[in-house]
Amino acid sequence: MQFELTNDFRERMEQALAEGDKDFIRGCLEGVKPADISALLQEFDTPQSKYVLDLLPDEVRAEIINDLDQDQRVKFLKNYEVSELSVIVNHLDSDDAVDLLNELPLQQREEVIARLDNEEKEANILDLLRYDDDVAGGLMAKELIKANLNWTVVQCIEEIRRQAENVQKVYSVYVIDDHGKLLGRVSLKKIILSNDQTKIADIFEEDVVAVETFMSEEEVVQIMRKYDLEAIPVVNVQGKLLGRITIDDVVDVMTELAEEERNLMAGITEDVEEDDSVWMITRARLPWLVVGVLGGFISAKFIGVFEQELLRVTAIAFFIPLIQATGGNVGIQSSSIVVQSLANPSAFTDSMVKRLLKVFLVALLNGLVLAVMVYGFNLLTGAEFNLSIVVSLALFGVVVIASFLGTITPLILDRFGFNPALASGPFITTTNDLLGLGIYFYTVHLLL
Amino acid sequence: MQFELTNDFRERMEQALAEGDKDFIRGCLEGVKPADISALLQEFDTPQSKYVLDLLPDEVRAEIINDLDQDQRVKFLKNYEVSELSVIVNHLDSDDAVDLLNELPLQQREEVIARLDNEEKEANILDLLRYDDDVAGGLMAKELIKANLNWTVVQCIEEIRRQAENVQKVYSVYVIDDHGKLLGRVSLKKIILSNDQTKIADIFEEDVVAVETFMSEEEVVQIMRKYDLEAIPVVNVQGKLLGRITIDDVVDVMTELAEEERNLMAGITEDVEEDDSVWMITRARLPWLVVGVLGGFISAKFIGVFEQELLRVTAIAFFIPLIQATGGNVGIQSSSIVVQSLANPSAFTDSMVKRLLKVFLVALLNGLVLAVMVYGFNLLTGAEFNLSIVVSLALFGVVVIASFLGTITPLILDRFGFNPALASGPFITTTNDLLGLGIYFYTVHLLL
Repeated sequence: MQFELTNDFRERMEQALAEGDKDFIRGCLEGVKPADISALLQEFDTPQSKYVLDLLPDEVRAEIINDLDQDQRVKFLKNYEVSELSVIVNHLDSDDAVDLLNELPLQQREEVIARLDNEEKEANILDLLRYDDDVAGGLMAKELIKANLNWTVVQCIEEIRRQAENVQKVYSVYVIDDHGKLLGRVSLKKIILSNDQTKIADIFEEDVVAVETFMSEEEVVQIMRKYDLEAIPVVNVQGKLLGRITIDDVVDVMTELAEEERNLMAGITEDVEEDDSVWMITRARLPWLVVGVLGGFISAKFIGVFEQELLRVTAIAFFIPLIQATGGNVGIQSSSIVVQSLANPSAFTDSMVKRLLKVFLVALLNGLVLAVMVYGFNLLTGAEFNLSIVVSLALFGVVVIASFLGTITPLILDRFGFNPALASGPFITTTNDLLGLGIYFYTVHLLL
Repeated sequence: MQFELTNDFRERMEQALAEGDKDFIRGCLEGVKPADISALLQEFDTPQSKYVLDLLPDEVRAEIINDLDQDQRVKFLKNYEVSELSVIVNHLDSDDAVDLLNELPLQQREEVIARLDNEEKEANILDLLRYDDDVAGGLMAKELIKANLNWTVVQCIEEIRRQAENVQKVYSVYVIDDHGKLLGRVSLKKIILSNDQTKIADIFEEDVVAVETFMSEEEVVQIMRKYDLEAIPVVNVQGKLLGRITIDDVVDVMTELAEEERNLMAGITEDVEEDDSVWMITRARLPWLVVGVLGGFISAKFIGVFEQELLRVTAIAFFIPLIQATGGNVGIQSSSIVVQSLANPSAFTDSMVKRLLKVFLVALLNGLVLAVMVYGFNLLTGAEFNLSIVVSLALFGVVVIASFLGTITPLILDRFGFNPALASGPFITTTNDLLGLGIYFYTVHLLL
């Protein structure tokens, strides 16, 4: 049932491209879904891809370009003239059209918009360009089916017919009053099962969940997930229906958010993939590695201050990795629990005092277990008594303080509009490394 | 438009519960969506929640219980008798019914099934119980609308009417032949816009994407995301239509997978949330902390072997954190890039040799930059020449080897059926800590 991209197919395609065998290429791609052609074109360089796309019908070409990875599409669009771009934009839904336009240089963007011959599309696009791409307004498409409260079912069906080309996927018809205010929705199922002359007013559902244009994409994801929705209407502050967000776009947002979080936790600063160039991957990885090395260098200078203590009891050095690793692990655990609850907020959140008290209790318990364990090891392996006590005490202190830092850092980041997952990455590890060493050597200095 | 859970509302609810004021509670919850009542009930202890639920209609109660977090639901169901449970199960879709049944003790599960009076539902449930919950068969519901190829549109509408109660959300009608084999689909939009006497055979789409029962949930997510689907039919190896998976369940799977990955990366062994008990959180956090401490203890013993070297040149100890932090950071970056490409497989993957060669090149570049940087620092701050060379060489070696390990570990884990994200957590950090120390002290031993 599904098209499979085989290496054999790729080779035959490459040969056909080299020979300019248009008929073969057209024949090959007939009946293949646009999403599969997009995946295929990721493998070809851009002039070849354009050659293939120029052989396909306009609407298929538009859909394929829309399906490409964003960074590939940006490179790709450089090969297109303004006239070709306006044909593509004309065949896209308003939300996808705006995403594409935002990837173009400003002047080119204006030229493409000026060339659009469909006035409604142009108005829709100009309206959507106002929104940031990470709020509900930036996710919504203007294409939807709406019906006046006073219509009958048959009028509603006529509207669906009129817009059949514009609105690919119809899940429900949104019901509005004379001023365009959203009142509710009717599912297609209900329309099918109702008599033609039934009034919309008699069959519509009033308690429809909607989002406002300024809501963040994270909130849109949470709401659609909570109520199991396949589409959600978007309204302005007066409750006027402006557009709708469909679940496929929300699924893409979820994927992007997960990738962003993974990158933050791993200390990767750009959205790179394994098949990007060596140079791109290096550039994405170096910044946090450099921060880590700077942290390590500060650690080196810091330990240097305690050279006399080290000369006196060399064994102090043995436990540096233990202290450091535990601080890092505890910090990342703590912050990731906070990130989790920021991603899935519960109805009521405990007060800050109560949350920190709980973190403190967990830290006490963890710290106690680990400190006793290390003390036991040291006892068994015949380490010096005083040093054993110092290591266990420092370890306990590191667990408590790393827990506290790991908890408040994501909260502070979130408060100031940064992604809290940043606190689960090399940022917290580097901080905790320094802090752990500080606690350890201070304890050594005091007690040994 | 949306119900908001305020602290005020919670307090009034608590008071009404204490006074047993049924009318107040019923009045309060009228018109509130089940998903909101679920969120509210997360806040109440289970006997109170049951009291509230018993006041609501059967189908609403079933939906609310279905919406609860799994761990809360498990606790919750303990308060229910078999007779009450069978009423709940009767009001759930087959997939949700099976999830709930799987959370019951085996004997109770059998008793509930035996009490179901709806034969079709019982057959559906027994069929679904066979599948693991992480494959397409375990995600699908049996409820769907299917139409024979030879039907007309009006017959199709009659079938939708007949099943209106069973199938809440209808996106398309699946088209089958006389043997139940899936042939394609017709969207509701097309049914609305077609004449009553039109043959289904004349309007259906043939190239429908389907999944087979044994496909993993990750594959289902990838396919539905790729083709922007709101529902996907599930077939057996003969192509017979068995059920469908809807996007709301796939969105839940995506959320679970993201949480699982976050936990693995943070070294948290259970699915805990901030509002779980101190004891549960501690239990989820301790295992990897203990592993880290064990690693730290082995490090301590290892460094102990080089006590003579340390006595000779104390400054060796200064650079332990630098080596260790860099090894950890590099390892996590490498593995997370692999995890990313396993999560979003591209159409063609490069050969293993080519992938490792690229990793090696990136590692060389990163290692070189960092080693030169550290050498520069050491030069500027007047560190000893020989030690500076040793530190930079060891750092370079650590970067290269940590990159290699970080790349192959997730691949090996994936090959043996483990979640590759395990390699982006404390597992790789602990390994790399030990390895980094080994490389460092070996270099010290050879060159200093």
